[in-house]
Amino acid sequence: MRYSFADRVAGMEASDIKKIMEVIADPEIISLAAGSPAKSLFPIEELKTASDTVYSDSSFEAFQYANTEGFGPLREWISERHNVANQTNFQKNNIIITNGSQQGIDLIAKLFLNKGDIVLCERPTYVSALSVFKSYECEFLDISTDSEGMLIEDVEGLISKYNNIKLIYIVPTYQNPTGKTWSLERRKKIATIAAENGILIVEDDPYKEISFTDKLIPSITKFDNKGNVIVLGSFSKTLCPGLRIGWVIASEKIIEQLIYSKQTTDVQTSSILQRQVYNYLKTGNFDTHLLTIQKAYKRRSKLACGAVKNYFPENIRFNEPEGGFFLWITFPDYVNTEKLLFMSLKRGVAFIPGHLFYADKSIYNSLRINYSSVTEEELVRGLEILGSLCKEVAIRGKE
Amino acid sequence: MRYSFADRVAGMEASDIKKIMEVIADPEIISLAAGSPAKSLFPIEELKTASDTVYSDSSFEAFQYANTEGFGPLREWISERHNVANQTNFQKNNIIITNGSQQGIDLIAKLFLNKGDIVLCERPTYVSALSVFKSYECEFLDISTDSEGMLIEDVEGLISKYNNIKLIYIVPTYQNPTGKTWSLERRKKIATIAAENGILIVEDDPYKEISFTDKLIPSITKFDNKGNVIVLGSFSKTLCPGLRIGWVIASEKIIEQLIYSKQTTDVQTSSILQRQVYNYLKTGNFDTHLLTIQKAYKRRSKLACGAVKNYFPENIRFNEPEGGFFLWITFPDYVNTEKLLFMSLKRGVAFIPGHLFYADKSIYNSLRINYSSVTEEELVRGLEILGSLCKEVAIRGKE
Repeated sequence: MRYSFADRVAGMEASDIKKIMEVIADPEIISLAAGSPAKSLFPIEELKTASDTVYSDSSFEAFQYANTEGFGPLREWISERHNVANQTNFQKNNIIITNGSQQGIDLIAKLFLNKGDIVLCERPTYVSALSVFKSYECEFLDISTDSEGMLIEDVEGLISKYNNIKLIYIVPTYQNPTGKTWSLERRKKIATIAAENGILIVEDDPYKEISFTDKLIPSITKFDNKGNVIVLGSFSKTLCPGLRIGWVIASEKIIEQLIYSKQTTDVQTSSILQRQVYNYLKTGNFDTHLLTIQKAYKRRSKLACGAVKNYFPENIRFNEPEGGFFLWITFPDYVNTEKLLFMSLKRGVAFIPGHLFYADKSIYNSLRINYSSVTEEELVRGLEILGSLCKEVAIRGKE
Repeated sequence: MRYSFADRVAGMEASDIKKIMEVIADPEIISLAAGSPAKSLFPIEELKTASDTVYSDSSFEAFQYANTEGFGPLREWISERHNVANQTNFQKNNIIITNGSQQGIDLIAKLFLNKGDIVLCERPTYVSALSVFKSYECEFLDISTDSEGMLIEDVEGLISKYNNIKLIYIVPTYQNPTGKTWSLERRKKIATIAAENGILIVEDDPYKEISFTDKLIPSITKFDNKGNVIVLGSFSKTLCPGLRIGWVIASEKIIEQLIYSKQTTDVQTSSILQRQVYNYLKTGNFDTHLLTIQKAYKRRSKLACGAVKNYFPENIRFNEPEGGFFLWITFPDYVNTEKLLFMSLKRGVAFIPGHLFYADKSIYNSLRINYSSVTEEELVRGLEILGSLCKEVAIRGKE
């Protein structure tokens, strides 16, 4: 006799993106596929100093078991920063520290999703969020977006049609994969709709600090007076992913349940790393560091846009990023970027084909370019190679 | 309208033990309640050196996104150590690194438990494992143990009665809370039964290295030739809990699924801390460190046993630990240790009342003493105070 897996495992497999990442582990390949920050921009020296302070604190509290909700001063810092940026009024008790913001998605899914519940998401969206939600056996309905965000009439239409929509999952600022940012108006509207209908909004916001303009982009929590908005944040893009320090901001009632859930899930996030990050933040150098990386990523985004203009065929559309890590390039319908990837890999360049970011994987004529993790030289060379290939494909397509 | 939680939340609440821990945060109270290792025994200096090496490695790989399954050399080290101790044949691919072994329990529960599935466990058992399993809406059947482990006839009886027993969860070495260790014979038998019936054994083994004798206690994997045994391990008791580095050992098929599951759950465990731990282990000082802490914990366990003999009434039973962190004291039936706790807290001593370790919370005449986390002086004084109280209660009980 053989043991058997739970039913929910049917939907669990290595993400297609992970599979692609394994294929392209070859260091000869220029990878525009990853969603990673640049290693060269990690503040390693400052993080080391912050770590040393953890070790020289003679109480050794950092090394013992600690609160599930996280290190108090770090939670306070996060709530204050959010309040200053968004005129909100969160306290330490509105924050739980998680192992990167991915764990926040998992804890929220576990807390709210019954089998068959519906999650509304953007079309396309961050695909690894869909994988988490799916592991709790929910259904998805994805909603098209224009330059301002989700089409609100479509959201309203689905809400009036289905009574088991539990969550609206969105990445409203410098979205992965499209780089799009929701307008102020659309943010207000979605907050109102969520409050009126008892639906939660999960505002996944890891790219917020990677901004290339002075525009103030408020969190949706600014327009929430019912405690229906949950924000996910992370130091993975600003400091480094190896720390695995993220957070959730939500009403105290939700945070309380998230604490129970995390307590059984993994007791706590490393108190050594939480204190290290707090020591770093205490120096006050975070904003200077942000200026440095914003400048570097902005330069890369401009280089990428320039290269796409120079080397790609004319019949494409793409975003000019105001922040974040990604270019989203859309080709005419006849182009299949999954096939394009195989050709591109032969020439030594990788990207993520766009269909992987759709809940139903049905749209094949887009692709995602990451400009944050490669060097400037690799970025331009990679886009030149890919652009030439696309021109050939475009010509063949027209024949 | 108001959002609603998922059905599984009904069983989710702060663990009673956590609630007790919060009550006794008062530093004036001698806490024999925690399950923590001693802060004074953490190898802080060596861990700092191991951390420095992570920062001086110029590739900065530790700070970037990394494999979900964990740092290769650390996984290899873990598999080799397990093989040497148990004459097994595990490889790196049989290991996944987790955020402490608690996350291992969660990932396993997610992978195997459908609503209504049955988990067999010891009576009493590690209660936080039950909390995880419960969050996947399973049922429990607990099985009495004698000095050798679970009563095998009872296991067989339940297996023939129920066809949806999925997992047997056990802590067979220096168990939390009873300190009991399964015999060789009983380990063999449970492995056979599991294999014959397609049931998985989860061997939770965090205390294995905290041994006070030279006895070789093999893992149940030694007797498993069907890949039905899953081992959970951790550096929380041997190095320190703040690292949150644990692991799962299992068949490649199970590990592969655990990787998919962890990938969506939190992407990876901190690669900074994984490399730090590996740097520490590479020095070869781990076994010397173990000798130091084994000696210290053994001394405390002897002190605790001596104090119980000296100060407690005669009509109790307790284990003389061969390893681990706990004394389990059983009183005559008329003693209610939940009530005893309130009296004891007034005198400044905390412990965990025994009923919290039973799936049905029905047995009130035992308590758990932790001797690992307090100083020797506190330990003896705490047990003297508690012992006097118990004598008073015993006298009152007889009146």
